[in-house]
Amino acid sequence: MERLKLLQQLAIKSTTKMVLLILDGLGGLPMTLKGETELEVAYTPHMDALAQVGTCGLMHPVSPGITPGSGPSHLALFGYDPMLYEVGRGILGALGIGFPLLCQDVACRINFAAKDERGLITDRRAGRIASKRGAELCTLLDKIEIPGVELSVRPIKEHRAVMVLRGKNLSGEIADTDPQTTGAPPHPVRALTPEANHTAQLLEQFLTQANKMLAPHYPVNTILLRGISKYHSFPKMGELYKLRAAAIATYPMYRGVARLAGMDVLSTGETIASEFQTLKEHWEQYDYFFVHIKKTDSYGEDGNFAGKAKVIEEVDSLLPQILELKPDCLAVTGDHSTPAKLKSHSWHPVPVLLYSPSARPDNLAVFSEEECRKGSLGVFPTQELMGLMLAHALRLTKFGA
Amino acid sequence: MERLKLLQQLAIKSTTKMVLLILDGLGGLPMTLKGETELEVAYTPHMDALAQVGTCGLMHPVSPGITPGSGPSHLALFGYDPMLYEVGRGILGALGIGFPLLCQDVACRINFAAKDERGLITDRRAGRIASKRGAELCTLLDKIEIPGVELSVRPIKEHRAVMVLRGKNLSGEIADTDPQTTGAPPHPVRALTPEANHTAQLLEQFLTQANKMLAPHYPVNTILLRGISKYHSFPKMGELYKLRAAAIATYPMYRGVARLAGMDVLSTGETIASEFQTLKEHWEQYDYFFVHIKKTDSYGEDGNFAGKAKVIEEVDSLLPQILELKPDCLAVTGDHSTPAKLKSHSWHPVPVLLYSPSARPDNLAVFSEEECRKGSLGVFPTQELMGLMLAHALRLTKFGA
Repeated sequence: MERLKLLQQLAIKSTTKMVLLILDGLGGLPMTLKGETELEVAYTPHMDALAQVGTCGLMHPVSPGITPGSGPSHLALFGYDPMLYEVGRGILGALGIGFPLLCQDVACRINFAAKDERGLITDRRAGRIASKRGAELCTLLDKIEIPGVELSVRPIKEHRAVMVLRGKNLSGEIADTDPQTTGAPPHPVRALTPEANHTAQLLEQFLTQANKMLAPHYPVNTILLRGISKYHSFPKMGELYKLRAAAIATYPMYRGVARLAGMDVLSTGETIASEFQTLKEHWEQYDYFFVHIKKTDSYGEDGNFAGKAKVIEEVDSLLPQILELKPDCLAVTGDHSTPAKLKSHSWHPVPVLLYSPSARPDNLAVFSEEECRKGSLGVFPTQELMGLMLAHALRLTKFGA
Repeated sequence: MERLKLLQQLAIKSTTKMVLLILDGLGGLPMTLKGETELEVAYTPHMDALAQVGTCGLMHPVSPGITPGSGPSHLALFGYDPMLYEVGRGILGALGIGFPLLCQDVACRINFAAKDERGLITDRRAGRIASKRGAELCTLLDKIEIPGVELSVRPIKEHRAVMVLRGKNLSGEIADTDPQTTGAPPHPVRALTPEANHTAQLLEQFLTQANKMLAPHYPVNTILLRGISKYHSFPKMGELYKLRAAAIATYPMYRGVARLAGMDVLSTGETIASEFQTLKEHWEQYDYFFVHIKKTDSYGEDGNFAGKAKVIEEVDSLLPQILELKPDCLAVTGDHSTPAKLKSHSWHPVPVLLYSPSARPDNLAVFSEEECRKGSLGVFPTQELMGLMLAHALRLTKFGA
């Protein structure tokens, strides 16, 4: 039996409360051979105390050696097998802005970009135009009409937008047009299966009209399409685990993937303090809270080791606010590693701690990559965390007699 | 999705270099309760230094408790699921000597053996006859003709040979005739499925003629058939992982399994030093090198604890020659354990170290079975190693958005 089915079969309703606190890209690397990671350098007395009384381990985001994007890594945190439940960037983008997707809709990410007179891309982000400008251009493209299909273009942020196609026999099996480099022309719209030819033709028509419309708007005079994908609804966490789940996240993509898993997405402010305040305000209404901290990942991607360590310290200093709520199970971890040394997501396993009255204390000295590998959870795939959280919150009955 | 498919989807071309250094049968056992293993006794300052700055773990060759032969254990090292990609000993033997197999060929290993007048086997290896004598006898048997099938008999080494059948509707589903003991008659040729009856009859005819031919050649007066198996081509490492792969191995079987995985097999000398020299000479031509050290396993099988430890020391003393080449990822491990205490292959998990600039340092004291179980890779199946090597060599793109 697939593990998710087993959890669904064993999950029971309860009044216990769970918090999944994600420091995005938490796992790190030392900058020098004998050095420490971002988490090891950060002063984190509260997390360290939890690593003593909680149970710890290291998690492979998807599978050993695999570096995940934010979609699969979060789906794994929510208990879904990320190799079975795949979701495209376009769908994540649409969900992130709260677009009311229907099953069979096809969505794709749009980047406003600049090309030269020969058609070669000169800037894949058109100078990272302001969000207001991006929204104006979306209003323009949203007017494009293609017979037989309903078309919506919506802004995300800066040069990023999303398009949703609604109609019959649409397919998401189409390659990106984004060449991922400058000095090259965009890739043509290419169907990856014969069934996708119809959708490819629709996108071709859309591109032709969009290029015409954008011609007078230099430095934005073209668009690139990425992550063309079809929406299939997912089994919802509420039904799977018999709980009420809420997400507290500031960035659209994480709100999108939470929505995909069936969570309510709560309004919150931009700071960590305000996210924790939101948690407190909704404490009675939900059983499971996904709290997402973005800045650890952003600093990691920038190669800012000290900045990432500082965000970890900020989260730690505010952690007592969560502990005061007395969660029955609190998991502190990341969705993947983003070592400042590599300036990118990576495959390195992520430290995780589970704090719960029912946890077996691992008595680790601190919360760190090195200590967590001595933890009693061992090294395991992220998708197993959800079941461990349910277990520690006493929300799973016995399997078999 | 199967992991191999995922790796294929994510692998990218790159200029980075990988080395898989296999000490065959590396894992060991202490001879006494409070003793140390072969690896722990051996003086290995270079491997110990790598265990400090690299990332380590223990690998199950196939699945916990399963003792593998050399075929499955090496296929797992190359990233293939050894339970999906099965390959018989006959096929491995034919590949090992470079026999140009075609799909649907059936191959089997031959042992020249001695029997008494009652037909009972007295020596399963006919006194380990010289390779030259074995080759002469193969020339003899190669003359046997069976209507409707093309038949080739080729020497491997000493008493070992291989036969290949080429024809229509052949099957590899036939039991060994080797009784695996002396004082017993050979097993009859027995088809394991109805479809294999035809091939069993062909082998029966071959055996009758071979026994007649060998009658005057005592101590060799019969043959035993083992590992009868059919050739199916494998997906090649070059296509799977987008790299150029080469094998450096002195024994035919390892050259054979490398060839099956699509590697180029390089000419090399018999010593470890000459194998390392071959690596150096071909450094620019390939991206992935499989370097195979046989003697650790041979001494293990002989129960020679000190001999095995000494080979480990020899490899360690030559290790700087590999490090000078500055591989982007070096894995040092074994294909399985061959504890001198057991005088055979075993199921015990094998220590592994990954040395790479992108590895998270585990700061282990030494490279040993005991230290490796504290490593951040945990205990994992061997078939996951290939993906980890590709990741550390920065040869995998991100999974999902």
